Amino acid sequence: MLRAVALGGGHGLQITLAALRRLAVHPTAVVTVADDGGSSGRLRRELELLPPGDLRKALAALADDGMGAAPWSEVFEHRFGGDGALAGHAVGNLLLAGLLEVIGDPVAALDQAGVLLGIDGRVLPMSTEPLDIEADVTGLDEDPAVIRRIRGQVAVATTPGRVKRVRLHNATGPNRTPTATPEAVKAVRGADVVLLGPGSWFTSVLPHLLVPELHEALVETAARKVVVLNLVPQPGETAGFSPEQHLHVLSEHAPRLRVDAVVADVDSVATPDRLRTAAASLGGTAHLRRVAAAGAPERHDPEALARALSEAFTAAGAHGRHGDSGGRGVARRAEGEED
Amino acid sequence: MLRAVALGGGHGLQITLAALRRLAVHPTAVVTVADDGGSSGRLRRELELLPPGDLRKALAALADDGMGAAPWSEVFEHRFGGDGALAGHAVGNLLLAGLLEVIGDPVAALDQAGVLLGIDGRVLPMSTEPLDIEADVTGLDEDPAVIRRIRGQVAVATTPGRVKRVRLHNATGPNRTPTATPEAVKAVRGADVVLLGPGSWFTSVLPHLLVPELHEALVETAARKVVVLNLVPQPGETAGFSPEQHLHVLSEHAPRLRVDAVVADVDSVATPDRLRTAAASLGGTAHLRRVAAAGAPERHDPEALARALSEAFTAAGAHGRHGDSGGRGVARRAEGEED
Repeated sequence: MLRAVALGGGHGLQITLAALRRLAVHPTAVVTVADDGGSSGRLRRELELLPPGDLRKALAALADDGMGAAPWSEVFEHRFGGDGALAGHAVGNLLLAGLLEVIGDPVAALDQAGVLLGIDGRVLPMSTEPLDIEADVTGLDEDPAVIRRIRGQVAVATTPGRVKRVRLHNATGPNRTPTATPEAVKAVRGADVVLLGPGSWFTSVLPHLLVPELHEALVETAARKVVVLNLVPQPGETAGFSPEQHLHVLSEHAPRLRVDAVVADVDSVATPDRLRTAAASLGGTAHLRRVAAAGAPERHDPEALARALSEAFTAAGAHGRHGDSGGRGVARRAEGEED
Repeated sequence: MLRAVALGGGHGLQITLAALRRLAVHPTAVVTVADDGGSSGRLRRELELLPPGDLRKALAALADDGMGAAPWSEVFEHRFGGDGALAGHAVGNLLLAGLLEVIGDPVAALDQAGVLLGIDGRVLPMSTEPLDIEADVTGLDEDPAVIRRIRGQVAVATTPGRVKRVRLHNATGPNRTPTATPEAVKAVRGADVVLLGPGSWFTSVLPHLLVPELHEALVETAARKVVVLNLVPQPGETAGFSPEQHLHVLSEHAPRLRVDAVVADVDSVATPDRLRTAAASLGGTAHLRRVAAAGAPERHDPEALARALSEAFTAAGAHGRHGDSGGRGVARRAEGEED
């Protein structure tokens, strides 16, 4: 079975994982830990832990949706209401916070949560320390050339200016260079396919390239590298960005990164030729397919995305380094089949 | 195997359950839900749920302490520190709150938590609605005859006066008469042995007699009824109360209740004859044994309590209605044996 590693965070990663679950691959999620908003931000500040929200979402996306793990997936995703101290906290975030405090090692804590939810695959944090994101942004002053430094995921994701570049810092400790989770580096190096995107480009996708060991692993891995582009530009992050500009920004943050396939929704690409050229400049092929949900052009359809990924995994140079699917394409998982 | 039902709350119930786990009995805990203090009180007020703390403690007492449920028992009992919105909350309380909100039925929610912790037995709330306790207290005024009404478990447990009588109300809904959890009533009626105490007499032990259906079940059950007395009087609740006064108060709140055995620590009883007389007036026998922990006269030793209970279960009229232990005494559970 192909080893697929999906790097991202938030809703975009959930979509990728939902698509991967439809294929006969073993999925590993490598998740950003730079969030500072919402329930995650409150927990991170109060307890000085990894922000759990994106990790929780990835676990939920891989959770056993049969009877086995019920009702834990639902409890995990349940949010307390009202206007008290707990309002807005997801139960899964609180449980992850408890596991992180008791177990200490975030990888072991997430594996334990994975057992509870009966997940198919593995969820790893990109770093075992909480990270801070910082962006150079233009367009906040009258003079459009002025670059301002914006700090924090929420601030970066919502700034009205134009993000030029992002950096990542270790939020704790004297060494500010972020360190990668060793298991995440190992997963990328040992993968058959690696996926980047979709998701908030500067705050969920690019951060993986800003952790040095993860950057090296992504550049050096023999895995087939697939970039999944967003359907619509995100206000605050990528307003006005064309699909090829997304690739350009990726390249700016990781000049040595080669990409094998770029998956984009055919209806979201205004100038297919430019995207093909941009993909080729990274060493890859553009796969323009219909992957948006019917009637909701801003959302990926997991079923359609699974089909496009299956093709992108196997087209031109398909390989299953670990065995059984080489040359035969990626098997679709049979109805109800689990491993 | 004997079906043993232990009624109580808080630390006292934990002791009984720890002792029962050492015997070859199937334990069911029936737990008070009138707490309004600490983490439980905050959750109860914020989310309008059953106060989870005493339920959590009973679950923890019955949890699989082998490798099977680790680290869930530890996570369940872990409390968040610091001085933020979560400070002092036990993770298990938050998880129970989530289960209660998602599942709705408290019995099903507790069964689900029981599966997570691999508990040996069952934990049931005395009522599926949060309850309020109210006490008539003297000694708060200059005139010692003045009776004041004190409301809430924390207030009752800490009032400097003398509690004369307690009442229990349904905290929600138009009908203020507390309703018993049907499964708890069934457990009491189907039990071989029923245990009352030790614990905060007015706020953890007597409340079970103040829920009409549970009261009837306790009076009518064919189970052997065992009262376990406290080792030391509790300031605020039973300061200056002798062991026989504890029985007297019990009888005042449930005149029709007959008791088969009264277990007390031999060193805590100043006048053994008076206790024997008080036990006899309830229809039972006093079992004066050394059950306090060595060097900690205010704490029960679970091992010693298990021995005393085993004797109290089988002495004079021992019966195993459901089978295998009639006449042979209660088997001690072998080292590491689980069922």
